[in-house]
Formats: sequence, C-alpha cells, structure tokens
Amino acid sequence: MVNRYKCVVGYDGAGFSGYQVQPNKRTVQLEIERVLTTMNKSTVKIVSSGRTDAGVHAVGQVFHFDSTLEMDGHQWCRALNAMLPEDIVVKSTERVSPNFHARYDACQKEYRYKVQQTTMRDPFTRNVVTQVSQSLDTKKMQEAARYLVGEHDFSSFCAANTSVVDKVRTIISIEVQEVYQNQIEFRVVGSGFLYNMVRIIVGTLLEIGTGKRTVEDMNRILEARDRTKSGKTAPPQGLYLWEVRYDE
Amino acid sequence: MVNRYKCVVGYDGAGFSGYQVQPNKRTVQLEIERVLTTMNKSTVKIVSSGRTDAGVHAVGQVFHFDSTLEMDGHQWCRALNAMLPEDIVVKSTERVSPNFHARYDACQKEYRYKVQQTTMRDPFTRNVVTQVSQSLDTKKMQEAARYLVGEHDFSSFCAANTSVVDKVRTIISIEVQEVYQNQIEFRVVGSGFLYNMVRIIVGTLLEIGTGKRTVEDMNRILEARDRTKSGKTAPPQGLYLWEVRYDE
Repeated sequence: MVNRYKCVVGYDGAGFSGYQVQPNKRTVQLEIERVLTTMNKSTVKIVSSGRTDAGVHAVGQVFHFDSTLEMDGHQWCRALNAMLPEDIVVKSTERVSPNFHARYDACQKEYRYKVQQTTMRDPFTRNVVTQVSQSLDTKKMQEAARYLVGEHDFSSFCAANTSVVDKVRTIISIEVQEVYQNQIEFRVVGSGFLYNMVRIIVGTLLEIGTGKRTVEDMNRILEARDRTKSGKTAPPQGLYLWEVRYDE
Repeated sequence: MVNRYKCVVGYDGAGFSGYQVQPNKRTVQLEIERVLTTMNKSTVKIVSSGRTDAGVHAVGQVFHFDSTLEMDGHQWCRALNAMLPEDIVVKSTERVSPNFHARYDACQKEYRYKVQQTTMRDPFTRNVVTQVSQSLDTKKMQEAARYLVGEHDFSSFCAANTSVVDKVRTIISIEVQEVYQNQIEFRVVGSGFLYNMVRIIVGTLLEIGTGKRTVEDMNRILEARDRTKSGKTAPPQGLYLWEVRYDE
C-alpha cells in the first residue's frame, strides 16, 4: 500500500544551485530524492510547495512524496537526517491524505529577508544575510510597505522573464523590524508570489530606506505595473522561505 | 625604503585548510600573500601571531609584513579588501617599528569557543558554532574552569603529537557564559597556548557540563599531566582566535 507523506524541511541555500533538479548541478530536490530512492529501493519523486533560487534558504519548505514504507514521523526524520547532507534538515514528517498536494494546497507563504547594516564586511554572515553599508530608515520602509498590502497587480515586482500572465496577487502583511542591533528583517506573508517578487519588493524598500527614493514612490511604482520602475532585485542570500501554510 | 605594517584580519575558517601555507591547499596565508605580492610587484611574506587549524575562525588574527609601498591604514584596508576573497576581511593596518614581530611580541591571546544547544541540527550555523544536543550545566563548567586559571603544566591539555617540551603556560581567565538563548561562549585569555589546548579544555568542560565527568575531575586531570585523562578535542568550527594583545 502506498502512503503519502508531508515533510517540512530547512536548508542553507549557499551550497545549492537552487531547489529544483537541473542536469549536473547540486540541488535540494536531487539530494532528497536520492536519499528517499535509496531508502525506498525504487525511484521516489518529491513535489514541493515551489522552487527556491540558487543561494535562497528555507526554514519551512514543504514537500510531499509517496512511499510504500510505513514509519511514523519521528522514524522518518531520524532516517532522513542520518542520510541527508548537513546543509539540509528534515524537521517533521507526517502521513497525510493521498489527495494532499504540497503545491496546489498551499494557501499562504511567509518569506523573511535578513539585512545586516555593517560598514565593514562580515565574513561570517556573508551567506545568510545581505550586508548593506548605508544606514537604513526602518520607519520609512514600514510606511512604504503599507502600499503593497492587499490585492494588487504586482507587475512592477515580477522578474521580466516570466511566462505568467495574471500578475494579481494578495499580500496579507509586510513587517519591517529591527530584530537585533544592526539587523533588519522583512516579513512578507501572501497567498501567492510571482517570480522574484519578494526580492524586488525588498530591493525597492532598501532604496527607500537609504533615501534614494521616497515613501510615496512606492505607490507610483505599484500603479505603473512596469518592472523597469521598481528597484534592483535584492540578492538571494538574505531570503528565507520561512513557512508554508495549508488549510486544515 | 621598507616599511613594516601590522595588520588585524578576520576570516571564516570553513573554506580554508587552516592558516599556514601548504602545497595545493587553500589557506589564509596563501590568499593574503598572493594579494600583497600582486600589489607590491615582488614577493611578500607575512608573519602571523600563530597558526589556526582547518575550520578554525579568526576575528582578530594579527600579522606583519614589510613593503616599500607607503599608504595609510585606511588605504591599505580598502586596497586589500577589494582584492581579498569574501571570507577574509582586513580590519586595520598600521605602520609599526621595524622591530615589531607579530609572533614574538604577542603577550596575550584571547580565544572564544561557541556552542549552540539544539536538539535538531541547524544547517545555518554548522560552520560557525559547535552544535550540542545534550543540555549543559553552565555553572558546573564555570566552577571546573577555575582550576585551570594561573600558571600550570598543561600536558593534559596538549595534543599528543607535539614537539614542545615545556608545557607550562599561564591562563589569565576563563569565562563560561550564556550569550544568547541556547548559545554558550567560552572565553579563554592566556599568555600562550599549546597545540589544541583550547579545544581540549572546551572538550573536557563539555563533558563536565553534560554530567559525564564531575567538577572535581578537572583538578585531577590537570594534575595528571597526561593527555589520555582529559576529554575529547572539541571540533574546530566553534573556535575563534578573538584577539592578540601586544605591549604598547
């Protein structure tokens, strides 16, 4: 009998060419499928909530897979973590309905983006935050972020090379806060995201935080529905897929 | 005219086969000498306060070098950081007396060792702390550390494969403190250290912290002057050469 399992996984994106399998590249999907296939003694494919790009991290990525093996969540975690490389950790595994789908059933995602303000580069955090040497006005970034909350056409915040036609998405909340001294965290919750959307939003907010653009520019950028009007795509190493939520 | 410069450097040890030049290995010394030789248009050798092993980090390693170039500290830092890889940062450079010697003149060193208590492995900190799954009794480790302060024969805390004969060293202070939730930091200041001394001290303290050994065992281990009596050598990724102090 085949069982469907739902798995929550974290990974340090620094050592991967992204999530999705690509020829001759080390990817998260490849490492996990290799281990599951070994355990299962036949090919196992996994289906995730979505891809992450090279260098992007996950704290709570979700995938599902089917297996004839019958183990409880604790046993799966122990077995998988013993065989997976150190930069991937399986946090929980549970048996779910055969109808569960990690991508189609996801109803909310939270991304976080970490920025460290530092005048001198910090070798220890270079892969896990984005280092910024200018000072940032958190309050202005908070104000500008409010324009984005709600249902909007996010064409200005979508990578130009996408095939997606409908660019209307809903952002449920955006918080901008200083979590430690010199570290600012952006927390973006939405029902769905376009390609590079969080990184373009953060890149634009950073330009507002440094004073290169004004708070009100954000509204004009959103209404322009034009990628050339928004800021630079913020680099991948600050981005974390934090949580994927499903209806019970 | 040749000038002598003193340089303070930090590095993430994860990507290096240690500090010292070795054939066909990526080392900190090699990267720095390559950049200085390019800038100087002739071979430059650097002399550090001492080696660090593969995987060990530095926040304040010190080296000196001689150069005919005349630049102020700020210019040196800018030029070196522009050419050095991202896992090395030059923090300060200053012109010193031609008699200054980074190794012989060092009068105190501080090492720090970072331990994270976590039941589930954390992919993001695996290269910058040592992860421990057992709970640790900080108070017991503090008490045991007191036995080591002062001038002692540290034969029990020196790697067996050393050629050093005199194993008497002075530890000025050892602090054990919880710096964040779930993170414990050991801070060891001494006038000089034997090979692997801090890592063997920490390894022994961790065995006391988990209850495998008692506080009083530390005194017996010290007096035994025998490496086989002390704990395991703690892994390199938790260790930082924090500061090297010189007499003014």
